[in-house]
Amino acid sequence: MKKPLVGIIMGSDSDLPVMKEAAKVLDEFGIDYELTIVSAHRTPERLFDYAKTAEDKGLEIIIAGAGGAAHLPGMVASITPLPVIGVPVKTSTLNGIDSLLSIVQMPGGVPVATVAINNAKNAGLLAVQILGNKYPEIREKVKKYKSSMKSQVEAKAQTLEKIGYVEYLKQMEKKLKNCC
Amino acid sequence: MKKPLVGIIMGSDSDLPVMKEAAKVLDEFGIDYELTIVSAHRTPERLFDYAKTAEDKGLEIIIAGAGGAAHLPGMVASITPLPVIGVPVKTSTLNGIDSLLSIVQMPGGVPVATVAINNAKNAGLLAVQILGNKYPEIREKVKKYKSSMKSQVEAKAQTLEKIGYVEYLKQMEKKLKNCC
Amino acid sequence: MKKPLVGIIMGSDSDLPVMKEAAKVLDEFGIDYELTIVSAHRTPERLFDYAKTAEDKGLEIIIAGAGGAAHLPGMVASITPLPVIGVPVKTSTLNGIDSLLSIVQMPGGVPVATVAINNAKNAGLLAVQILGNKYPEIREKVKKYKSSMKSQVEAKAQTLEKIGYVEYLKQMEKKLKNCC
Amino acid sequence: MKKPLVGIIMGSDSDLPVMKEAAKVLDEFGIDYELTIVSAHRTPERLFDYAKTAEDKGLEIIIAGAGGAAHLPGMVASITPLPVIGVPVKTSTLNGIDSLLSIVQMPGGVPVATVAINNAKNAGLLAVQILGNKYPEIREKVKKYKSSMKSQVEAKAQTLEKIGYVEYLKQMEKKLKNCC
Amino acid sequence: MKKPLVGIIMGSDSDLPVMKEAAKVLDEFGIDYELTIVSAHRTPERLFDYAKTAEDKGLEIIIAGAGGAAHLPGMVASITPLPVIGVPVKTSTLNGIDSLLSIVQMPGGVPVATVAINNAKNAGLLAVQILGNKYPEIREKVKKYKSSMKSQVEAKAQTLEKIGYVEYLKQMEKKLKNCC
Amino acid sequence: MKKPLVGIIMGSDSDLPVMKEAAKVLDEFGIDYELTIVSAHRTPERLFDYAKTAEDKGLEIIIAGAGGAAHLPGMVASITPLPVIGVPVKTSTLNGIDSLLSIVQMPGGVPVATVAINNAKNAGLLAVQILGNKYPEIREKVKKYKSSMKSQVEAKAQTLEKIGYVEYLKQMEKKLKNCC
Amino acid sequence: MKKPLVGIIMGSDSDLPVMKEAAKVLDEFGIDYELTIVSAHRTPERLFDYAKTAEDKGLEIIIAGAGGAAHLPGMVASITPLPVIGVPVKTSTLNGIDSLLSIVQMPGGVPVATVAINNAKNAGLLAVQILGNKYPEIREKVKKYKSSMKSQVEAKAQTLEKIGYVEYLKQMEKKLKNCC
Amino acid sequence: MKKPLVGIIMGSDSDLPVMKEAAKVLDEFGIDYELTIVSAHRTPERLFDYAKTAEDKGLEIIIAGAGGAAHLPGMVASITPLPVIGVPVKTSTLNGIDSLLSIVQMPGGVPVATVAINNAKNAGLLAVQILGNKYPEIREKVKKYKSSMKSQVEAKAQTLEKIGYVEYLKQMEKKLKNCC
Repeated sequence: MKKPLVGIIMGSDSDLPVMKEAAKVLDEFGIDYELTIVSAHRTPERLFDYAKTAEDKGLEIIIAGAGGAAHLPGMVASITPLPVIGVPVKTSTLNGIDSLLSIVQMPGGVPVATVAINNAKNAGLLAVQILGNKYPEIREKVKKYKSSMKSQVEAKAQTLEKIGYVEYLKQMEKKLKNCC
Repeated sequence: MKKPLVGIIMGSDSDLPVMKEAAKVLDEFGIDYELTIVSAHRTPERLFDYAKTAEDKGLEIIIAGAGGAAHLPGMVASITPLPVIGVPVKTSTLNGIDSLLSIVQMPGGVPVATVAINNAKNAGLLAVQILGNKYPEIREKVKKYKSSMKSQVEAKAQTLEKIGYVEYLKQMEKKLKNCC
Repeated sequence: MKKPLVGIIMGSDSDLPVMKEAAKVLDEFGIDYELTIVSAHRTPERLFDYAKTAEDKGLEIIIAGAGGAAHLPGMVASITPLPVIGVPVKTSTLNGIDSLLSIVQMPGGVPVATVAINNAKNAGLLAVQILGNKYPEIREKVKKYKSSMKSQVEAKAQTLEKIGYVEYLKQMEKKLKNCC
Repeated sequence: MKKPLVGIIMGSDSDLPVMKEAAKVLDEFGIDYELTIVSAHRTPERLFDYAKTAEDKGLEIIIAGAGGAAHLPGMVASITPLPVIGVPVKTSTLNGIDSLLSIVQMPGGVPVATVAINNAKNAGLLAVQILGNKYPEIREKVKKYKSSMKSQVEAKAQTLEKIGYVEYLKQMEKKLKNCC
Repeated sequence: MKKPLVGIIMGSDSDLPVMKEAAKVLDEFGIDYELTIVSAHRTPERLFDYAKTAEDKGLEIIIAGAGGAAHLPGMVASITPLPVIGVPVKTSTLNGIDSLLSIVQMPGGVPVATVAINNAKNAGLLAVQILGNKYPEIREKVKKYKSSMKSQVEAKAQTLEKIGYVEYLKQMEKKLKNCC
Repeated sequence: MKKPLVGIIMGSDSDLPVMKEAAKVLDEFGIDYELTIVSAHRTPERLFDYAKTAEDKGLEIIIAGAGGAAHLPGMVASITPLPVIGVPVKTSTLNGIDSLLSIVQMPGGVPVATVAINNAKNAGLLAVQILGNKYPEIREKVKKYKSSMKSQVEAKAQTLEKIGYVEYLKQMEKKLKNCC
Repeated sequence: MKKPLVGIIMGSDSDLPVMKEAAKVLDEFGIDYELTIVSAHRTPERLFDYAKTAEDKGLEIIIAGAGGAAHLPGMVASITPLPVIGVPVKTSTLNGIDSLLSIVQMPGGVPVATVAINNAKNAGLLAVQILGNKYPEIREKVKKYKSSMKSQVEAKAQTLEKIGYVEYLKQMEKKLKNCC
Repeated sequence: MKKPLVGIIMGSDSDLPVMKEAAKVLDEFGIDYELTIVSAHRTPERLFDYAKTAEDKGLEIIIAGAGGAAHLPGMVASITPLPVIGVPVKTSTLNGIDSLLSIVQMPGGVPVATVAINNAKNAGLLAVQILGNKYPEIREKVKKYKSSMKSQVEAKAQTLEKIGYVEYLKQMEKKLKNCC
């Protein structure tokens, strides 16, 4: 196994259904990562150790997800010199606006690269784009990814234009039924 | 000097004009405290040391103020078994709603006793009320404080009723001019 | 039966599913409490009597939960010299942001120790941590509680690291099905 | 002196510059009122007494203004059978959204007739409109008031149409300079 | 049939499940009312006619409910000299914060007595309390209503204190199952 | 087929269930339109081409719907001289308040005519009303549409007044069951 | 004088400093307009008359600005078949978020084309862009306007690139001093 | 001159007082950058060209700041494979919450690394931390920067502990006077 370049951490295993999307993106781009639980509030020493040793372990980016008073990304960023990406996890009471503000409103000196609420997929992609600066083969994959997103949208647009919205919506419903 | 019972900490000296009100209350109640700067984001080790040693130093309560992505109160609470009071400091962009949510929305297991935005005075009073459980003389002072607040309001009410609002407002304006 | 140290009150029995979590925590820590309904708006005299007599009954802390225009915690705090912990209960229209602001934004002189929306568990824990100042055996239990939280997270982290997120999520789903 | 029909109360004399507008409206309509300070949090007994005796004193409406965790209007409404009008006073941190939600979001059973933030003038007018049901001469005055508002707007509109916006703005600026 | 004292109007029949609660309260208090649909945006003339003729028809209060850009209560209030009570109806997108602000933030001169989001019951009660000023028998009923609310809460509190929260919650669940 | 006057575009086919309502309105008014997917973020060139060629294709209005960081309407408006109508699509995390602000808060120089969250129907109607300036027969249809809305409300009002709210609600429930 | 194509109305002359920007844009494009005060709440009949007669007077677009519970744009839109553009005016308490929601959240059937808070300039431009569909010479001016905006930005960009940000900021400050 | 690694762009020169802080940080770290104005809405072609050519010019990171409906960062991110850092600029009406949501709530596939409102300094630091992955000498400087922040806080803390808050506040005031 190769040394992981990205560390994905989250405050609780209840964040895993959201945070797994970051892992999936890295899998898709063939980038090695490690994924674990680090709770800022219930395991503060573990948080410190994780952040302290991240660089020496060879990690280049840390993706941290948390909800509510979401301190994990900011606290990791306070310790490590690595870039830290924060994922605000949606909460049952305030929909994640609390998580978002707790992560993004960092004071001068300690940035956290914040993505949209629950959008761990974009955290993964941002990590990939950052790695693209150093690893040209990853940069190439980013370009292919962007190009493939484009093709998918264009294909859908073409279908929609051809069959019209009434038929298109029927097909969407049909797919929905089959898939789940 | 007696051993301090309360530790007042803040993320930055720019929080001091707000946080000094907590100190003033403790001064007023004759309660020993220590007051310093501990930045969760710029001095994470200091935060750890402070929280780790707080109980052994004899502190019984920690008052922590911070603004924006305000992680200080929650991180201290994650480490110490002492009760932690959080003061959300008003921010220039979001008025402190970010600070409030970052402090109050703590996950199950790690409470922070949150007071109103910028209301360090109430943080001081809450500390005093908590100490009142163990120190009967402090409890008595709390009662006197509440009684004195009552008298002040009643005195103002009496004046207002007697002289009417037009005259009362004139006197308020006059005091404002004289005081500053 | 021993004299209760903590009073848990709520504005309506519809708050009980939320507020019972405070009781559970106190049960877990072996702390005697009383629990009842006190509505600030429908039983104002009862509120006054409750708050007036709380100290003499031997209560050391009051936990008060309410939703919407949540006046119960603040009004109790206006009367008793005891520390009051407020639990903002989630509302069907505004998700509890109304409850939170009604409880936390208390004026200078009358603090309410506010916890997260719906987080009565943390209200219970905060009460326990406050009692820990006076009762050393409770302080010890707090430390054990924190240590046990840590172990639980570490155990989960270890499992997740060992079996990977795909398998872990499958097991989570399985548990969910079995439990309810 | 005639017996007052309206009681105007506020949580603090700092609310007086806002709340005086309610008094001014009642003065304008020749309606007797009393005006004083009643703090829900610093003088809870006074609040109770005030609300308990309001009806017997002959008051028909209570106007209550407060800011932040604004409990005064709702607590008065919990005690008196009279209609209570609440004025959310603007706060320095949250602009009065806290006051508004604390006043308007009352639970079923205890309404508070809430007006706009800082709009004590409208509280006065609402009181007048309510009194108009019982006192036909007040109803007539309400109609005249509405008619006079209309005339004022129409006069301004006519001027604006005649002289154009450039000239109109110049005259507005001139008036501003002269008045203050 | 007696002449109705209260007019209940709403912007759409989709508001009826909410607004019917106002009618129920008036039924309970034996107060005659009329109830219909008046859309500010789809039937502006009807709105004008309704508001213009309300006083002459003998109405003493108008309760108006609407959602989103809720203009009905304010526009009725602009035309009639009667007191107008506004009910902000919860919306599917913004939960009724849009309705609340559209109703409560009226400009100086034209008040709307606003109640909590979706709380048509309180609109009915506020109407009853206002009528109580003129009709002593209604005032008496208001007092009985308040007293009966009190008794209900006290009875629940007594049960809860006696049987404990575990058993109480079981009984609540049982009732829920039976009722619906 | 006639040349379309209106272009309806959306950021993703997941917006189609919302955006189809704009198409339905145009169908109802007999106005030719084209409908397709143009993603500002995944197909930026397509966005440019679409906006660049819109006028020359004969389009007179563009309706653009998007959710979250909704850049499509504003970016189209930056390129085309045609009026652009923006539809903020509701989001799963922030209910569309993010979409609304991203669309409506355009800087001076580049307006987007914004309608309510998820209200693509109104986007269609706004387009129709705009076209009414140039095409008198469309203006006539707008008047008929407004008149028919009025009749529908009046018919419902009449029924409600006749059968009362209890019976009306029963019939609403019955219709609901039959329809879906 | 030519017949005005655009009607600019506002709820109060205090909105004029904001709304004059719409007039300035129309002046710049050489489009005739009329400008006056129409208060939905203080002059409801005037509102009705204005909206009822707008089309017959030859107006093609109405721009309506209002603040707080801003009902003017929506009520005008309920009456006239013309397209209505709404300008949410910033308020002293809630910064105009109340105005924005009161204007944009219109129900299905009655759209208001909403622009950014206080952005009457964009309301003017939107009117111009709409007129461009019918009047080719206006369309041409819109294109020139867009092109000139572009040139201005490019000129500034060139200067900034050439002299650097330190010098550029100095020049900005100097201009500020000279201009006011 | 060396080839710039970072491109700093902003929507308007009015953003320069905020965005210059990113430049200052890069100056401090000795990193070459270019800085210019690119308006998404007034110069869309320029935006496209800038984003299209950024990688080939040798840029490794783009920092984009904008306010209100802030589309610049997201649109640049839609075109370039480089990581894009977004700075939400504070707005006069909504304080930058509009800018924040317009920048951070990007859809899956196109991330923008968002920092706090107005915190261009952190955007600069995030760029530096990202570059640190590829350029070891930059990584070293990041560590020194973090260490120096720590020392500064510790020095202030020491002073505060030594001279007490009363004296410290006096010195702060004195510095304020001297500096500006």
